[in-house]
Amino acid sequence: MNLNEKLKEVREYIKTKELLDQATGLVYWDMRVGMPKKAVEQRAEVVGYLSSEGYKFTTSEKVKGFIEFFKPHLDELNVIDRAMIEELRRQYDEIKRIPEDKYKEYVILCSKSEAAWEEAKEKNDFSIFKPYLGKVIEYQKEFLEYAGYTETKYDSLLDKYERGITVEKLDEVFGELRDAIVDLLNRIKNSGTNIDDSFFKNKFTKDEQEEFGLFVLRKMGYDFDAGRLDESVHPFTINFGNKDVRITTNYHENEFRSALFSSIHEGGHALYEQDIPDELMGTGLGTGVSMGIHESQSRFYENILGRSKAFWKYFFPEAKKRFNQLKDVSFEEFYKAINIVEPSLIRTEADELTYSLHVIIRYEIEKLIFNGEVNLEDLPKIWNEKYKEYLGVEPSNDAEGILQDMHWSDGSFGYFPSYALGNLYGAQMLKKMLNDSPAIFDEVENGNLDTIHQWLKENVHKHGAVYKPADLIKLISGEELNAKYFIKYLNDKYKEVYNLK
Amino acid sequence: MNLNEKLKEVREYIKTKELLDQATGLVYWDMRVGMPKKAVEQRAEVVGYLSSEGYKFTTSEKVKGFIEFFKPHLDELNVIDRAMIEELRRQYDEIKRIPEDKYKEYVILCSKSEAAWEEAKEKNDFSIFKPYLGKVIEYQKEFLEYAGYTETKYDSLLDKYERGITVEKLDEVFGELRDAIVDLLNRIKNSGTNIDDSFFKNKFTKDEQEEFGLFVLRKMGYDFDAGRLDESVHPFTINFGNKDVRITTNYHENEFRSALFSSIHEGGHALYEQDIPDELMGTGLGTGVSMGIHESQSRFYENILGRSKAFWKYFFPEAKKRFNQLKDVSFEEFYKAINIVEPSLIRTEADELTYSLHVIIRYEIEKLIFNGEVNLEDLPKIWNEKYKEYLGVEPSNDAEGILQDMHWSDGSFGYFPSYALGNLYGAQMLKKMLNDSPAIFDEVENGNLDTIHQWLKENVHKHGAVYKPADLIKLISGEELNAKYFIKYLNDKYKEVYNLK
Repeated sequence: MNLNEKLKEVREYIKTKELLDQATGLVYWDMRVGMPKKAVEQRAEVVGYLSSEGYKFTTSEKVKGFIEFFKPHLDELNVIDRAMIEELRRQYDEIKRIPEDKYKEYVILCSKSEAAWEEAKEKNDFSIFKPYLGKVIEYQKEFLEYAGYTETKYDSLLDKYERGITVEKLDEVFGELRDAIVDLLNRIKNSGTNIDDSFFKNKFTKDEQEEFGLFVLRKMGYDFDAGRLDESVHPFTINFGNKDVRITTNYHENEFRSALFSSIHEGGHALYEQDIPDELMGTGLGTGVSMGIHESQSRFYENILGRSKAFWKYFFPEAKKRFNQLKDVSFEEFYKAINIVEPSLIRTEADELTYSLHVIIRYEIEKLIFNGEVNLEDLPKIWNEKYKEYLGVEPSNDAEGILQDMHWSDGSFGYFPSYALGNLYGAQMLKKMLNDSPAIFDEVENGNLDTIHQWLKENVHKHGAVYKPADLIKLISGEELNAKYFIKYLNDKYKEVYNLK
Repeated sequence: MNLNEKLKEVREYIKTKELLDQATGLVYWDMRVGMPKKAVEQRAEVVGYLSSEGYKFTTSEKVKGFIEFFKPHLDELNVIDRAMIEELRRQYDEIKRIPEDKYKEYVILCSKSEAAWEEAKEKNDFSIFKPYLGKVIEYQKEFLEYAGYTETKYDSLLDKYERGITVEKLDEVFGELRDAIVDLLNRIKNSGTNIDDSFFKNKFTKDEQEEFGLFVLRKMGYDFDAGRLDESVHPFTINFGNKDVRITTNYHENEFRSALFSSIHEGGHALYEQDIPDELMGTGLGTGVSMGIHESQSRFYENILGRSKAFWKYFFPEAKKRFNQLKDVSFEEFYKAINIVEPSLIRTEADELTYSLHVIIRYEIEKLIFNGEVNLEDLPKIWNEKYKEYLGVEPSNDAEGILQDMHWSDGSFGYFPSYALGNLYGAQMLKKMLNDSPAIFDEVENGNLDTIHQWLKENVHKHGAVYKPADLIKLISGEELNAKYFIKYLNDKYKEVYNLK
């Protein structure tokens, strides 16, 4: 069989797996958006069944055969086909290297661990979660050893979520970012400027909010013929291929910003997935490449664009038309209030400036864990100290401290950094975008968001998962990942918002 | 391996198939309720993939092994296990007996035939559809021959949708029913009574209608923790197990009755599925037994209960509270207007009395087709003549005549009769119900619909698909399927509504 025939066969195989994934995704979406509550248990079994079918696809003898066939031919393949085979191999290795019974034990442990985390959070008691956390970490370390990692364990965890990223690199950029934010935060605290955002706490009905959110999403270029907006407890984006990319939001009637900015955020994720070219479907590469790059898109829309003056030059008059509650608010007051800085304890509620600090704290603690430099019982103390040091606030209990996120309960170590990487990537993209089209934000003032969208589509979205994130950001911006543009962006912005010297 | 171990293995197998079916059902529901339009093609492939997996489950060597193992042991099994194995065998035989390539040809033919039917209906031209219809019929006849049916072909088509029902039986009950309805219809026409239903054509907003529909559904006992109400072009009920049974409706703002009675109708289907006992899950019998019995439940709620005086004694004051549009309408006027008889051309828009005639016409024509007693080009003429004869109305074109339903385009011959069987079954149940609890409708007047619900649950719903419909109706009512109770019900009702002598 020649290369082309075999490639056709591989694509056929991957395409079938993608059909299964789309079905699984749809069941998952429904669980979070529409499922009646009595269906929980039966539906969990459906998801379990579909997932195990997915597992079989990923680890089949057929995949092994594909990998072996192409091993001596990788250089003969074009960039997409090579990335396709590489991705097939990566997923196969990641799962296959773990003995099956170990993996099953781990899955069972995780479900217990998640339940323990929930209970611990509810009862505000880290000690309930601690033994499970310890076991999850042990398994994770053991899995890394199967893969041959003994020295740089945390590196390989990072690599799982953001291929090509290392501790060395993150130490550099996160260190720089952390110091810059802490410094900026102190200057803001000492600025004497107080921003009033009380007018956002009036009543804004769900219908009013929804209508305005839909208006903004349409302007962003979100395609409602290939997506839909629903409600869920936690906003999220999910896609089944590039023709059905759904987002959710959550309305709070006594807060104007929450649903709106989460819609814009999810809209940013969604544009990425809707823009994936059809040619990448059926290659396993037809989706966003990593959480970090994905967050760069959502945060670009939410913050760089969505909290910019240019954006509101157009949308503020539109908001005023719709919301009588804003009739006495000036443009300046509005702009400042959407950019207010308030150090807080909870990551998911953080403002644009302090958000990265929440992430960096988790990154630093995960490093300690995987370098074996910490006793688990000290974690709450370490957590609280870091919050005090960087943010100037201190959790009064575990629930608003170490127990706030569920990520560690199912072993998602290495995942947190991608939230902050998105900020850095986004600022690097902004820099390049402004080099290419210096007047691009002038168009935004007139309500034209399309030029920005097209730039992102052309430079980011169209590549899907063909390049590793580290290669992609270089391809896009001409530079390696770095913190300087984001730091400059933050300084410029808050200097103005808080009248800093 | 002993019987119990093997039974456990079978149940495990069927349960897994049910998980797949639930996923398939959910994808299908989404296609009709929420899917963005650009996803149509990709989603069709997902459904195709899941269906082919379902096909593999139904026709696997494993199933063959189960059937062979249990063949000599059927008498040792309890009624549920025996029905379970029997159902497994029936599905296996139905599909396996057709050569695979023939089946594939047929599936392709059907998709072309459906498209031809659509075009024909749009262009109002039976001749476009005729050649496809001819081929579909040929294949159907050939399939029946594989199964060894040569004489009583139409019987075996009926059996597919309503096990145990024969042409002989249907000729008897449908003949009697047809004559009775035609007679009653003529008496109504000559009664000189005219019913005014113009007040239903005022504007009733979607929100008002929805709120009232939800109120009625809750009163019926529909469990919103195990279901939900959505909108779709054609109302339907779909279930994924017994814990998630969803219904849809379609609101018309210039018509009060449409959405309401379709919600009650679908609610009747849904109660059946929600009431299936957990013990029947994973046996392949945990669902309504047939379309005919299913329609008995939906029509019982929609017509026997939902268009009764007792029902509206309670709900009419509630409706008046909500709908100012009804303020000048008396109870008598309202009651008559929901029971107006208007012979019409379209089955799906027919009133309670004439609905069965639409079905009987299709039954009579299907018989002609499978007995080889008709040339296809004569079908429109035959159709129109029967409408003229039974209903006194005549289609002016094929679209409102022979082309109105899609059923024949995909070969669903034998399906139509179940729509009318539901009416007969329902009246037999009513008779028995009133024997058991003569005052059951008095409770309805006070808004208590629960006693009726419990009776149906205990006598119908709890059996799932354990008994064949013919056996079930005997078990429930003590009598074989017959038309007399429905005919009496119709006579009593319309005598009053139309002041007949």
